[in-house]
Amino acid sequence: MNKKTSLKDIAAHLGVSVALVSYVLNNKAEQARVGKEMAERIKQAAKDLNYQPNLIAKGLKSGRTKTIGLIVADISNPFFANIARVIEDEASKNGYTVIFGSSDEDAQKSMALTETLINRQVDGLIIAPAEHTQEQIENLQNRNIPIVLIDRYFPTLDTSAVYINNFGAAKSAVTHLIENGYSNVGMVTYQNQLFHVSERVRGYKAALEQRGIGFKEEWLIRANYHGAQNELEKHLKNILTGDDAVDALFFSNNSLAVACLKIIHQLGINVPDELGLVSFDGSEAFDFFYAPLTYVKQDISRIGAAAVQLLLKQFTPAHEPEKIEIPATLIVQKSSIRRR
Amino acid sequence: MNKKTSLKDIAAHLGVSVALVSYVLNNKAEQARVGKEMAERIKQAAKDLNYQPNLIAKGLKSGRTKTIGLIVADISNPFFANIARVIEDEASKNGYTVIFGSSDEDAQKSMALTETLINRQVDGLIIAPAEHTQEQIENLQNRNIPIVLIDRYFPTLDTSAVYINNFGAAKSAVTHLIENGYSNVGMVTYQNQLFHVSERVRGYKAALEQRGIGFKEEWLIRANYHGAQNELEKHLKNILTGDDAVDALFFSNNSLAVACLKIIHQLGINVPDELGLVSFDGSEAFDFFYAPLTYVKQDISRIGAAAVQLLLKQFTPAHEPEKIEIPATLIVQKSSIRRR
Repeated sequence: MNKKTSLKDIAAHLGVSVALVSYVLNNKAEQARVGKEMAERIKQAAKDLNYQPNLIAKGLKSGRTKTIGLIVADISNPFFANIARVIEDEASKNGYTVIFGSSDEDAQKSMALTETLINRQVDGLIIAPAEHTQEQIENLQNRNIPIVLIDRYFPTLDTSAVYINNFGAAKSAVTHLIENGYSNVGMVTYQNQLFHVSERVRGYKAALEQRGIGFKEEWLIRANYHGAQNELEKHLKNILTGDDAVDALFFSNNSLAVACLKIIHQLGINVPDELGLVSFDGSEAFDFFYAPLTYVKQDISRIGAAAVQLLLKQFTPAHEPEKIEIPATLIVQKSSIRRR
Repeated sequence: MNKKTSLKDIAAHLGVSVALVSYVLNNKAEQARVGKEMAERIKQAAKDLNYQPNLIAKGLKSGRTKTIGLIVADISNPFFANIARVIEDEASKNGYTVIFGSSDEDAQKSMALTETLINRQVDGLIIAPAEHTQEQIENLQNRNIPIVLIDRYFPTLDTSAVYINNFGAAKSAVTHLIENGYSNVGMVTYQNQLFHVSERVRGYKAALEQRGIGFKEEWLIRANYHGAQNELEKHLKNILTGDDAVDALFFSNNSLAVACLKIIHQLGINVPDELGLVSFDGSEAFDFFYAPLTYVKQDISRIGAAAVQLLLKQFTPAHEPEKIEIPATLIVQKSSIRRR
């Protein structure tokens, strides 16, 4: 293990008192009393012996460590990997370092990570909360730990949060499909109770209803987050055949879209003529598909920057929780425009 | 800021001594002396008041915080995002939490992150070192901080490291192109001095030489990591036209491959008939390109698992730095097999 150089080590090295070393290294020394030369010698010895000041202790005194903790739901999803990058850039501009972790959409892991980061004295947390973590978030609030939620939030909790209008974006996406001649629009989403997911489902259903299309329960695939590809394949085959077969699909996120796209491609189904597609969130993969995917684009740069700004606000004495809704855009590409 | 509940608060709340509270909460109390009922009351009060033990102080005593720091070079690159996920899974299996940061291929940022994580008392670090960080790594070694390097390493430093044979993998990839009838093979890489990159360039040149193909300096594009897409486009147009035009390209990583693929696609160049392609590392995007890309596959699961295991070894009393080379595989797809 790391044997750290202490003030005592430096004092012993120079044959002076620990108090003197401490005075000099903490910049408390009145130059007249310590003497310039001695101050220099102590600083040089600290350097030579690789003395590391205890930043956590310093942080406890000043109440700040200039560190932000970030908890994403799944770092292997490009949406979160890119948001992490943006938050880091924005934090860095403001003199903050970001340390982060991934909850893997697991409440237990989320709890462990949160406590790890808090015990590492982060000044505050930006969290994309996993399912079943409402209590954890509430608990953080009760402990007055500055937090900002991103991507998802709990409508019953008065927390600072940055998000998009998931209901509206989903409704627009599905309406776009209907306006382009598709009628039996299905949806593929994850089996969970997160607010942003249920809002997307609600938007999907509202679009169907507004256009007088009767929603059918079998059109809505709720995939298991940890589920296998062949389970998804079975669901898709069901929904794509038979009397009530869908002629379009709305994917509630990019990972699901990529997984389904592979299956659709293997089944030899022609996009967009036989099947229209729209996804939530982009993916590098979409641009290389022969019919590039239409998708709801979240402005990751704005979301990340707003999250950091809201957190910084909470470090000031008077602040109220604040919610910021960032507009989303539908990027229309070939996958949703029938050619015949 | 977070006003933490102290032992003193609990003691005041119950009207007992701080020492008694400390005894009970640190499990030092002999039940007979404290009494079961009082112990229960103290534990309940700690819960009610949301008392959080100072884990860093505990860690300092035991010499362990059960936390691993991970520094990747760029979290928005799927290679690192996936490695982060694997390391987290493997660490979790062994009872460790991972907190991580991204150096963004920047030595200064890397230094700040490293010190932040060390000051947060991580037990050790897994690092994909950015360029010009050799001194930082050497310094960590001198301070006896357990580290394992991944993806890249410094051949002159005796550190634990997990990596693949970059020279051999690059040589095989380029040889595969030559064996499939391509002769003027170009390479696109980043302008940097990292060992793994120079090894890939060396492997590329060795393959040409072994097959009697004279390497031309203009065939090797060294792109700026922070460079713009139009700069890359200019380079590619140059290399793809004229007397010495290339008929195949080897990309030294997946981000470069995706960026170039977009340009090649826009230029209307037919892959693999007019241009053969091989990349280092896969991407979800490759599978959706009309001619799926042949690529060098690194075994991310094995790399991540080996890195965690090597780090855990360093927490044991006697250990020597250890280097593990993980085999890489060439995944042959359509982009490198001419049809005529």
